[in-house]
Amino acid sequence: MLCNCAKALLQPVLVNTSKTPFRKYTARRALMYVPASDDKKVAKAFATNADCITLDCEDGVALNKKVQARLNIRELLEKGKPARKRRYELVVRVNSIASGFIKDDLRVILTAPHLPDSIYLPKVEQIDQLKIFSDYLNEYIKKNAKLGLILGIESAVALLNVVDICKEAVNMSETSKFQPAALLFGSDDYCASIGARRSESSSEIIYARQKVISVARAFNLQAIDMVYIKYQDLKGLKKQAEEGARWGFTGKQIIHPGQIDVTQEAFSPTSAEIEWASGVLKAFHKHQKEGEGAFAYKGNMIDMPTMKQAQNIMDLSNAIMIEK
Amino acid sequence: MLCNCAKALLQPVLVNTSKTPFRKYTARRALMYVPASDDKKVAKAFATNADCITLDCEDGVALNKKVQARLNIRELLEKGKPARKRRYELVVRVNSIASGFIKDDLRVILTAPHLPDSIYLPKVEQIDQLKIFSDYLNEYIKKNAKLGLILGIESAVALLNVVDICKEAVNMSETSKFQPAALLFGSDDYCASIGARRSESSSEIIYARQKVISVARAFNLQAIDMVYIKYQDLKGLKKQAEEGARWGFTGKQIIHPGQIDVTQEAFSPTSAEIEWASGVLKAFHKHQKEGEGAFAYKGNMIDMPTMKQAQNIMDLSNAIMIEK
Amino acid sequence: MLCNCAKALLQPVLVNTSKTPFRKYTARRALMYVPASDDKKVAKAFATNADCITLDCEDGVALNKKVQARLNIRELLEKGKPARKRRYELVVRVNSIASGFIKDDLRVILTAPHLPDSIYLPKVEQIDQLKIFSDYLNEYIKKNAKLGLILGIESAVALLNVVDICKEAVNMSETSKFQPAALLFGSDDYCASIGARRSESSSEIIYARQKVISVARAFNLQAIDMVYIKYQDLKGLKKQAEEGARWGFTGKQIIHPGQIDVTQEAFSPTSAEIEWASGVLKAFHKHQKEGEGAFAYKGNMIDMPTMKQAQNIMDLSNAIMIEK
Repeated sequence: MLCNCAKALLQPVLVNTSKTPFRKYTARRALMYVPASDDKKVAKAFATNADCITLDCEDGVALNKKVQARLNIRELLEKGKPARKRRYELVVRVNSIASGFIKDDLRVILTAPHLPDSIYLPKVEQIDQLKIFSDYLNEYIKKNAKLGLILGIESAVALLNVVDICKEAVNMSETSKFQPAALLFGSDDYCASIGARRSESSSEIIYARQKVISVARAFNLQAIDMVYIKYQDLKGLKKQAEEGARWGFTGKQIIHPGQIDVTQEAFSPTSAEIEWASGVLKAFHKHQKEGEGAFAYKGNMIDMPTMKQAQNIMDLSNAIMIEK
Repeated sequence: MLCNCAKALLQPVLVNTSKTPFRKYTARRALMYVPASDDKKVAKAFATNADCITLDCEDGVALNKKVQARLNIRELLEKGKPARKRRYELVVRVNSIASGFIKDDLRVILTAPHLPDSIYLPKVEQIDQLKIFSDYLNEYIKKNAKLGLILGIESAVALLNVVDICKEAVNMSETSKFQPAALLFGSDDYCASIGARRSESSSEIIYARQKVISVARAFNLQAIDMVYIKYQDLKGLKKQAEEGARWGFTGKQIIHPGQIDVTQEAFSPTSAEIEWASGVLKAFHKHQKEGEGAFAYKGNMIDMPTMKQAQNIMDLSNAIMIEK
Repeated sequence: MLCNCAKALLQPVLVNTSKTPFRKYTARRALMYVPASDDKKVAKAFATNADCITLDCEDGVALNKKVQARLNIRELLEKGKPARKRRYELVVRVNSIASGFIKDDLRVILTAPHLPDSIYLPKVEQIDQLKIFSDYLNEYIKKNAKLGLILGIESAVALLNVVDICKEAVNMSETSKFQPAALLFGSDDYCASIGARRSESSSEIIYARQKVISVARAFNLQAIDMVYIKYQDLKGLKKQAEEGARWGFTGKQIIHPGQIDVTQEAFSPTSAEIEWASGVLKAFHKHQKEGEGAFAYKGNMIDMPTMKQAQNIMDLSNAIMIEK
């Protein structure tokens, strides 16, 4: 039997749910963009198994289709979130604060009888923009609601201010109608802002991607990786998605339904990993009872941190199982 | 026809010149050091086609030649900036604030009838040093003038303070006689300060180089990459310069005239890139008129960010054309 | 003969000992963990040649052995630091502030007649934790003492706050019983905190490792690299240790005596490097006298920064010589 003190030490081993923004883990392995102006593509999207369907009003929608995009989303939300066999998240990507379009986006969309699960606010650069966004939510949402908020970090200025942006978003979440859920890295906008040229290896954005992951996780937010734009090259997608998953991203933006399976597979633990994690956890508990902290397991020295990694893998595995 | 609102959205596509420190883009693809104490090397430098000739009073000049270096620059500035067929920038690298030499450097150089285009202040580590520098400029420059300022980020302390340094430099630019133009990364000094050993792959300074690029660009400054010290190895230089250009650096320090062509080539867009960028821009405008935001171009999905990258390439191309 | 002014310029060439936290350089090439609960392993550790023996009360010790671990260290410190042919540092890794165990650790250990050289405080995340730690030291250490402090940076939150943590630790060192000596990067805990999976190449932690090095060095602290957990794979260890050394880490955590020699070798300068450094320094002084600042040495252009790198290699070499 463990004393209370010992149990206290064991607590950090488990995911501390009181600190995470959402009680239940929302899988966003594939965050799929669909131009909301395109009825057919929208209809097709709901027939897929993507974790997260993002109806886009922003960069995927031409200027003369902005009004149509909003109206399509409004029409959809009149009927409520479309039913699908497997649970999914319905996200709306509105235009940025700087665009001048966002107020109309939110006015048309958020006064519908049903709300999307989350709003993706692109190109956040300054903390003032969060205040403006929150004011719009208060203006248009009359009922009690808490929308998930996905924050787009897509420029050098955004990356410079990302810690302040997270602090402000977390602070505001107590009194506003949003709850920060994830940081999303916009690689192509970021590269344009620093004058970098995108490459297959993505060596030009190691600093930016890893800073986004680290800051997101420090604030208990998910981190969503860049788009792989060669949408027909599934081999290249697989490689990049697996790297993102290994680095700590929780999911990836995709621009085509053909990218869903490869991406969601990459952000799911492998059966070998689940077996390893399960084995480590069993061995850990056995050795704890026998009084050994660190112990050898299949040639590696296992202690608390390795054990926590194993726990992470099991949590993710369970979350996806529930989703299925 | 686009409405005003739509035009506003399109604005960020163009380089926002009101926010950039210089109205006109100053190319600094090759920032070439010449020890100012060496008459012959100085004369040779002006016969080259380097974008940026930096007369050095600092690390390239021995202690017992410091006085000579200053006097040589003074003599040169008595006659005015040397004429050259192709436009170039004349920079003076003074000694650092910490060296104790800088006051004499500036006193001798800046009281000349003609001024250099820019001053390169090496080894900036603390924001106080900018105040000292500005005071010296006010003391010695009697006429209205605005010198470009290139800031050397060359140690762990400098990298720690680089955001504060940029903020202060930009703030001070309104009331001082300098205008921040670029951050310059001093790899060898930086490596000495962190105890790293330089390698051919430069993997030891990924964090430092990419942080310098990102911070510089967040403040609309140019970012100038490290020296390639093996000055006879043009193949190695090419590889490193191309990497720097791809990552977002706008130019590179060089220590030998033999390095100019390879370097300036690397920081110029290729004809294939110009063709691609030009094609993307044409296709973008066509698709915008037809009401499509994102569209497929040669197998890649193109939207606003990709389009901005294309615009960057065209801007750079135009700047170099003008220089020729 | 150099004038005073010239000598002032030369000063930064030498290690500025007045600014470094310890007068004498303490080598920590291999920081070896030994579970303090295990008498036999502790005895074996003192028979090794590891620079730094760390008696562990934390993750290497099971919950039901925490009391035993403390008592073993207390017993050892009753007799004084164990004698060993070669000088070494005796470190105690206590449990973290968040664990609830640390107060008892420090009460039992620091009231002994002899003190360890340094305390390693794991999982520091917030600056408040330094105040709590300092208060414990004041409570239990009655005599005048200054313990070295090794700070474990082991999570996304810790990495976010690392600059503030260093600032606070350096500020507090003037009035407290500790002196910050090193930052230590805990890769496995860090990866668990960001949801990354560890890989052989460690590409997932480039940002974290290089930020730790850069921040540590900005505060004149040592930087200690991650554990290589495959303790039987000396080839893999060698590769990773050599990379760490090249990047600017001053040492590495190890978990097995079999890892000592490979690790200490990797963090020692090679004879070729010593020869190169010695040659550069000689050539530098010769050229300084002859009035040349930058000069060619074996095909590379050598100036102040390269010369400082050479000086770093000689300092490290001398420190290890003294230790032998």
